[in-house]
Amino acid sequence: MSTIDEFPFMEDIKVNFGKRVKQLRVSNGYSQEKLAEISDLDRTYIPSIEAGRRNFSLEIINKLPKAFEIEMHQLFE
Amino acid sequence: MSTIDEFPFMEDIKVNFGKRVKQLRVSNGYSQEKLAEISDLDRTYIPSIEAGRRNFSLEIINKLPKAFEIEMHQLFE
Repeated sequence: MSTIDEFPFMEDIKVNFGKRVKQLRVSNGYSQEKLAEISDLDRTYIPSIEAGRRNFSLEIINKLPKAFEIEMHQLFE
Repeated sequence: MSTIDEFPFMEDIKVNFGKRVKQLRVSNGYSQEKLAEISDLDRTYIPSIEAGRRNFSLEIINKLPKAFEIEMHQLFE
C-alpha cells in the first residue's frame, strides 16, 4: 500500500486546497469579494476556503472552476 | 462568461463524480465493500457516491485517490 507522502497534495487536503484557490484567485487578480461574487458563493466562504478551515462539499467546490474558467481537475493540480 | 456546457464535468457534479468513482472501482476489480474497506469509508458511502445521491465533503472525497493509487485531480478527469 502507498503512503501519504506519495500523495503530498492529500496531506491536509483542506489546507492544500485553500492554497490552490488563493493561488488561482491572486493570479486572476481577483479580490476575495470578487471571487465570491463570480463563483456565486457566500462572501465568508472564500476566506474559510483559503485558510483551510472548513470541509466544504463537492457542490460548493464545484462553483470555483467556472469562476477561474478551468476544469475541475485543475483545482487539484 | 463561459456557460455550463463548456464544463461538461460540472453539469451535475455529484452524478459525474459518482460515475467516475464507479469506473475506477470496476477497473480496479473492487467490490463496493472492498473499496469502502481500503478507503476507510463507511460501507454505505460507496453506493451513495456512485449513485450521485449525496454531496460529500472534501475530506471524504480525499480518501478515494489513495485507494485507487491515483492523484486527487485524476478523480475529476
